[in-house]
Amino acid sequence: MATLLPTQDPRVFSERRERLAARVGATPALLLAGGYRPRNYPDNVYPYRAASHFLYFTGAQIPDAALLKTAGEWQLFIEPDGPGHALWHGETPGPDAIARATGVSRVRPLGELPEALAAAGGADAVATLPATDPSTRARQGALLARDWGGRAGIVTDLGERDAALADAIIDVRLRADTAALEHTREAVSATRAGHLAGMALTAPGAREYQIRAAIEHEFFARGMQCAYGSIVSVNGEVLHNDTHLGTLRAGDLLLVDAGAEHNGWASDVTRTWPVTGRFSATQRAIYELVLHVQVEACDRVRAGARYRDIHLGAGVTLARGLVDLGILHGDPEGLVERGAHALFFPHGLGHIIGLDVHDMEDLGDRAGYQAGRSRSEQFGLGYLRLDRDLEPGMIVTIEPGFYQVPAILNHEELGGKFARDGTLSRSALERFHDVRGIRIEDDVLCTGGDPDVLTHDIPKDPAGVESQVGAAR
Amino acid sequence: MATLLPTQDPRVFSERRERLAARVGATPALLLAGGYRPRNYPDNVYPYRAASHFLYFTGAQIPDAALLKTAGEWQLFIEPDGPGHALWHGETPGPDAIARATGVSRVRPLGELPEALAAAGGADAVATLPATDPSTRARQGALLARDWGGRAGIVTDLGERDAALADAIIDVRLRADTAALEHTREAVSATRAGHLAGMALTAPGAREYQIRAAIEHEFFARGMQCAYGSIVSVNGEVLHNDTHLGTLRAGDLLLVDAGAEHNGWASDVTRTWPVTGRFSATQRAIYELVLHVQVEACDRVRAGARYRDIHLGAGVTLARGLVDLGILHGDPEGLVERGAHALFFPHGLGHIIGLDVHDMEDLGDRAGYQAGRSRSEQFGLGYLRLDRDLEPGMIVTIEPGFYQVPAILNHEELGGKFARDGTLSRSALERFHDVRGIRIEDDVLCTGGDPDVLTHDIPKDPAGVESQVGAAR
Repeated sequence: MATLLPTQDPRVFSERRERLAARVGATPALLLAGGYRPRNYPDNVYPYRAASHFLYFTGAQIPDAALLKTAGEWQLFIEPDGPGHALWHGETPGPDAIARATGVSRVRPLGELPEALAAAGGADAVATLPATDPSTRARQGALLARDWGGRAGIVTDLGERDAALADAIIDVRLRADTAALEHTREAVSATRAGHLAGMALTAPGAREYQIRAAIEHEFFARGMQCAYGSIVSVNGEVLHNDTHLGTLRAGDLLLVDAGAEHNGWASDVTRTWPVTGRFSATQRAIYELVLHVQVEACDRVRAGARYRDIHLGAGVTLARGLVDLGILHGDPEGLVERGAHALFFPHGLGHIIGLDVHDMEDLGDRAGYQAGRSRSEQFGLGYLRLDRDLEPGMIVTIEPGFYQVPAILNHEELGGKFARDGTLSRSALERFHDVRGIRIEDDVLCTGGDPDVLTHDIPKDPAGVESQVGAAR
Repeated sequence: MATLLPTQDPRVFSERRERLAARVGATPALLLAGGYRPRNYPDNVYPYRAASHFLYFTGAQIPDAALLKTAGEWQLFIEPDGPGHALWHGETPGPDAIARATGVSRVRPLGELPEALAAAGGADAVATLPATDPSTRARQGALLARDWGGRAGIVTDLGERDAALADAIIDVRLRADTAALEHTREAVSATRAGHLAGMALTAPGAREYQIRAAIEHEFFARGMQCAYGSIVSVNGEVLHNDTHLGTLRAGDLLLVDAGAEHNGWASDVTRTWPVTGRFSATQRAIYELVLHVQVEACDRVRAGARYRDIHLGAGVTLARGLVDLGILHGDPEGLVERGAHALFFPHGLGHIIGLDVHDMEDLGDRAGYQAGRSRSEQFGLGYLRLDRDLEPGMIVTIEPGFYQVPAILNHEELGGKFARDGTLSRSALERFHDVRGIRIEDDVLCTGGDPDVLTHDIPKDPAGVESQVGAAR
């Protein structure tokens, strides 16, 4: 099937492999590309996407391929074209072309992998990372005698050798190199076009799927993919809404969380705009508060800052604003300590972004949480995906929000508790019933100095947003 | 996660279930909906699509659900919303709403499934079909003590009870009912809009992905999906081309095989058009031949006709045309017997279409091949996916083509052999070098009388096609 080779200089990938080799030394390691995933029968597949670790170190999308690092060498193992392949899938690049494009020293048939693994010291000596794709994971288990218990989800209890490889890869992938940044910027440029197209088409009566189609068309027409399932919803309070059947009505806010992926590199942007092109006074008040929180947090993306502190600081700013609006009562710091801000902002402020939109989340919290740190048990803070000290080169999202989620506000232990003790004023909140969900999200590069908001030119100030809505009419 | 309930009358699904029950009697049966498939980590998933058998009998898309038929009852088992579900995924329809929309008698928590299976007679007594999704298949193996050998592909050696269920389901699904036909017609209407949009945007210098984006936008903007990965290629001779990076050049033909899916129901249409909007004389000669073959074959979609005969008849008509053009030499029937037409038309004439674009191909050839018939070993005929006597209600594709595939024409045992014995005139073929791949495909409903070409109003005569190309300029 389709093999896509990188168009960048192969040194991009050689350098990445060298950085990894410097960290793991002589330990052999195997990274699998993963295969096609069937949709409703084996020949009807979802669009192919190589596993991110494989893609990072090769730049290539080659279904079912394997990258093997041994002491002095990097080799690729590929499924040779069977009879009939050229008929159905055309001529694919040969071993020499693949070696040239990726810079690996040898490209061999996949059938030789078991013997190469044996030569590298055998199943126990070779480090690997659990494949996401269950079929690939089964194959990997057989090849490398790993038993991850038949689970298809995230594996957190890696063996020592695999854990060391995971940590080394995280350390290499954590900071964007020049090529990564270049691709991310391309993705961002398509994302900008998509959000503008979505704003332009917005009008009462439109369906969510129409706006989504207009947005994603800007990605696809540039040869890009969606980095994740787009959220395009008048029910912005449903955080991971994956249906798009709703109708836009005057008075609604439309929340759009959509980002393009370019050569595997993700962007991730959320904007919220009024269906009529004019925020109501209550919508504007909350929108401006969320925007203030967001801009302040973006500005704090600086080397050495602890992401969790930025998250908590955003909570304090939000809580202060909600106190000013009469929705919460109390001292902002105290409110955040008690988790009251999480009634309206229950998720984390953001995450690392790279080849995965939640970068390296196939490894659980190992990438997002610095060694020695782990998730809080508190409602809200428990959803924070990132708790590292920021370093130059890291790209993170900053995405505070305000949502009225009935399941939270009506929950005995959450909304109920805070209403009973006078922290939450339900009557003040009532005024803001037309604000169901607002989120504003940018992708921010941590530099040695001021943060670089990669997505800065996607309108987010209220006037800028309002001027775009309905522009297609 | 997202639960999508049917909007049609629940009797549509009750009737389908009754038709199945009438065929399998008291045998209990379990059909699984299948789960989300991760793209690059578990939270980043491909768009959900329920397994077709589940969807056919419930109309519902409910991740990880199970449909259990026992002697007198149909029950749905669903994953209850865990804590936090409403936050991330919103309120989902409750058991009562699901029961009403699907017409099943009871909706129960998934955790009760093992006990229900035991009550139904246990693992050995309950018939099932192998899930396509490997994670679901693993779960199914554990629930029902099936061991399909860890394979993720098609299982052909079903046990007796499972095979009987498969045959009964095939018998029910083989003929489109009113609801199926209605959805298919909706899908066709989007497909028509897509092909017209693609033709309109076509011009030298455009990229394949731009045309693809324009086509698929027409699907998405109607709230539909792609029924399969669109082929949009100036290399039409690569039958299942899944890359779209090529640039359209004057003199090229663009082959587009793309169809929308509506509520699960697929359409599948191919058109081939000239990038400039004008066929060259050689392109027109071959195009008109393929069209003649196609129209003739469509007209033969009649109750009682054996699909294989229509396929072979199409081969004869193609061969006769190629003899007239001086490309082949010999008697058309004899050429087809020897497989010479397959040098240029190596694939099957078509397949059944329904909820799967190759309907029920998850069961291998069991649906496509009538009992007692099996695939030929001959090159070309071996790719025929359908060999049944047609019945009213069956929807089939008719999709002959002409391709110059170097891997075939240069193959010693194929092009080489026929050139050596004088059957193939390479010099005559040389004149047609600008015809790399042409395919014309419609979806045709077999009725009691004349065939109903569902996709008839998507232009296919040369003048109609030419008039659409570049219309957007």
